[in-house]
Amino acid sequence: MKTNPGRFFEDYRIGETITHAVPRTVSGGERALYHALYPARHALYSSDEFARNCGLAASPLDDLAAFHVVFGKTVPDVSLNAIANLGYAEGRWLSAVYPGDTLRSESTVIGLKENSNGASGVVYVRTRGINQNGTTVLDYVRWVMVRKNRLDAPAPDAVVPALAKVVAPETLVIPAGLDFSRYEFALAGEPHRWGDYAIGEKIDHVDGVTIEEAEHMIATRLWQNTAKVHFDATFRPDGKRLIYGGHVISMARALSFNGLANAQMIVALNAGAHANPCFAGDTVKAWSEVIDKADTSAPGVGAIRLRLVAVKQGAAPFALRGEDGKYLPEVLLDLDYWAVMPK
Amino acid sequence: MKTNPGRFFEDYRIGETITHAVPRTVSGGERALYHALYPARHALYSSDEFARNCGLAASPLDDLAAFHVVFGKTVPDVSLNAIANLGYAEGRWLSAVYPGDTLRSESTVIGLKENSNGASGVVYVRTRGINQNGTTVLDYVRWVMVRKNRLDAPAPDAVVPALAKVVAPETLVIPAGLDFSRYEFALAGEPHRWGDYAIGEKIDHVDGVTIEEAEHMIATRLWQNTAKVHFDATFRPDGKRLIYGGHVISMARALSFNGLANAQMIVALNAGAHANPCFAGDTVKAWSEVIDKADTSAPGVGAIRLRLVAVKQGAAPFALRGEDGKYLPEVLLDLDYWAVMPK
Amino acid sequence: MKTNPGRFFEDYRIGETITHAVPRTVSGGERALYHALYPARHALYSSDEFARNCGLAASPLDDLAAFHVVFGKTVPDVSLNAIANLGYAEGRWLSAVYPGDTLRSESTVIGLKENSNGASGVVYVRTRGINQNGTTVLDYVRWVMVRKNRLDAPAPDAVVPALAKVVAPETLVIPAGLDFSRYEFALAGEPHRWGDYAIGEKIDHVDGVTIEEAEHMIATRLWQNTAKVHFDATFRPDGKRLIYGGHVISMARALSFNGLANAQMIVALNAGAHANPCFAGDTVKAWSEVIDKADTSAPGVGAIRLRLVAVKQGAAPFALRGEDGKYLPEVLLDLDYWAVMPK
Repeated sequence: MKTNPGRFFEDYRIGETITHAVPRTVSGGERALYHALYPARHALYSSDEFARNCGLAASPLDDLAAFHVVFGKTVPDVSLNAIANLGYAEGRWLSAVYPGDTLRSESTVIGLKENSNGASGVVYVRTRGINQNGTTVLDYVRWVMVRKNRLDAPAPDAVVPALAKVVAPETLVIPAGLDFSRYEFALAGEPHRWGDYAIGEKIDHVDGVTIEEAEHMIATRLWQNTAKVHFDATFRPDGKRLIYGGHVISMARALSFNGLANAQMIVALNAGAHANPCFAGDTVKAWSEVIDKADTSAPGVGAIRLRLVAVKQGAAPFALRGEDGKYLPEVLLDLDYWAVMPK
Repeated sequence: MKTNPGRFFEDYRIGETITHAVPRTVSGGERALYHALYPARHALYSSDEFARNCGLAASPLDDLAAFHVVFGKTVPDVSLNAIANLGYAEGRWLSAVYPGDTLRSESTVIGLKENSNGASGVVYVRTRGINQNGTTVLDYVRWVMVRKNRLDAPAPDAVVPALAKVVAPETLVIPAGLDFSRYEFALAGEPHRWGDYAIGEKIDHVDGVTIEEAEHMIATRLWQNTAKVHFDATFRPDGKRLIYGGHVISMARALSFNGLANAQMIVALNAGAHANPCFAGDTVKAWSEVIDKADTSAPGVGAIRLRLVAVKQGAAPFALRGEDGKYLPEVLLDLDYWAVMPK
Repeated sequence: MKTNPGRFFEDYRIGETITHAVPRTVSGGERALYHALYPARHALYSSDEFARNCGLAASPLDDLAAFHVVFGKTVPDVSLNAIANLGYAEGRWLSAVYPGDTLRSESTVIGLKENSNGASGVVYVRTRGINQNGTTVLDYVRWVMVRKNRLDAPAPDAVVPALAKVVAPETLVIPAGLDFSRYEFALAGEPHRWGDYAIGEKIDHVDGVTIEEAEHMIATRLWQNTAKVHFDATFRPDGKRLIYGGHVISMARALSFNGLANAQMIVALNAGAHANPCFAGDTVKAWSEVIDKADTSAPGVGAIRLRLVAVKQGAAPFALRGEDGKYLPEVLLDLDYWAVMPK
């Protein structure tokens, strides 16, 4: 058979590295589409002049766009037969991506654990996005629950990697040259500095966006993510197309501009859960909580650890979990990341 | 509070200049999206070769795309609490915008008049779009009705600026180098020259486009216009998303190619009214009327003053106003502009 | 009348060449949009690095995007009053198109045959896409049935061109420099070489995409195709917008990646039929059949002749024609083309 059936749980081996297909050169086209698909307004990703004043060569591709490009390539090898995308850890952005760069992805299998039902198992991969110079631009761990194809395939020895709950602030990689000492707050859109945010502070980002089928499909295709559940309305019994979790991440992050306009660059992904599925017609809103803060050695640059929560219409203010400890049904996303801000 | 509540009527002061946030570098991506979102076919904005033959360095970003970029930045400071967008005047395009240029916007408050109800007032601003070299690329006046937040705030002294009904043709700025003496009519799509149009002539542009939610949201986000009424279906009681008036302007202008293919560049905006709201599902059509003509000093270049009217399905031919002098309900837009044509 | 009513059957003359309007400069924006609108993953069109390793200067614009740009320009002159798009023949891609190139189109009338009803006729044109250097990048024959306007116009002498059923493999033009001897199969996504495909082999491409109004309109406008039946929901009595046949071609070709990831470049279009209309809401799937194979003189490069069939939901496996020899109602497209593959 010439078509790709995807890998099943029994097809993964601890330690193997998978070269993902379809490298991608990005241009101003991907940049413009990112701004058309999400209400993205962080000035460093909008203006070459603003970025240069922050010590960069030009305005990079949005960190999440880079993430989506790298992630999308892994789908045919990692999650085509996935039942659930379970989590992320130890994600770090290591080098900014610029128009003209070409990205490819590879993943190493770092954990395997068959479920007790014998019908599926959890696969842990560490994925790297690599540019045309061989530089790793992004590195993260993801784990997914994957179906078995041959139910009689023997269970592998269980290996569950020890993953950090949070990327230690001293290991954050600040983009080379980044300097916020001449940061233009008026052009960035808000006056709030790193020092103005308190640990525990919560921010309701106010705005909402009602999602359309055409938009999430355009976005998901742009990242060459091919999971059919996002595109084929005849695939699920309910006739709904499941929206790519990364679409909700980008939507929520863009909405968080209103209150966090100066949380310019994402430098680490500590954890993330797609709490409930999102469908066209949902109106997505977002709120954030300041979890931690840390200094950096870059001029004028502080790091802020944020929880970013996406909810849909009807959610109570700062809704997250019920009394049973489970995510409330209105919660779509619970993301934990580090960003850099001017001090 | 860290989020932006927008300015209310009592927050404006005569003479103050507001620096709008989020400068934007445009590229071939914005160009391509403009052609994907509107049936734009004016050759000067489609082909570098055609534009060079007209004396320009390359094909510029569509004048209306430049307008939308500049306008979008003003929304968080000018119209977030607006009840209505009342009018435009004295708009002039002063310098073409090319891929690679970075635009920012600033607005000076030139008029304030509280309404007799004491609950709102009219704010007049003169907005300038400025490129990375400090050159003003666009300059226009807009006035909006804005809510008061503190109803007991004292009314300011009323200042209503004297605005020209029309940009005087001798003050039109023709882009540097523009030369239509070798104009290629066959490649432009129509043989009609400036001299072929008569004052009073009306043109039905024939074609119609039915508008989709995804399209107007993609367009409006592309210009970083954040007014929630365009994006959040839960915002209005009727569950409808109001379409950004600029989307209708661009749609009508693009449709006007059929009959005005040689009205290549917009050089002035004399006036404009968003006569009725536009919603997804509406089919937009357009007609034009030649209001005036003027010569210019550029080789082969004439100026033509046009009324551009957008209507929706069911409108009578050249429908505009009823016997009561008010816009008919099928009329969406009444725009008055100067364009340049080959003589 | 200043607007373009389109040409009618009696307006064509054998031997005349029509210069089509609105030349177009393409950029990374068109590239990115192509990837956003179709699940396109052929590595040579995705990565500059991959393309360079195949001997090209950079990653070209997708062959079908080039086709759509060239085709779109012909619509106002050829098919505005068409009743049906009847066929394609003798299509050859002669030179790759890169970001920065400017394309224009011209068509020569090579056949005319009035229908026996005296109300319409068939027009055959040979269309050439030409870049800014005067190089023909694409050349194909299309024939359409066009209405007459003046029913009393005399029938022209019937001229029906003799068209090749298939582009002879020895006349295929392989892009200058193309060299698959260092082809990276892992990055391309599949291990199957030219030698692995057998004549008569059929491949079900598995995936499906449900089509949205916004997407096909964005795509069709991007190619400046102005046929109102694609955009105006009030045009057809049933309120449906007919989807541009080229949208289905690109969708099916992109879906064919799954099983034909190494059929990188399209070099010839032998024939094509839009078997049934496609509307929003349809879920498009695709299958291919290997019709022929041929060697080429380029290093490591083989040619493969493929039938590409697009079907919609409910189609039986490899459905094509009924017992009456007619296309089954679920069949949307039957396309016959040559592509190049690594040997």
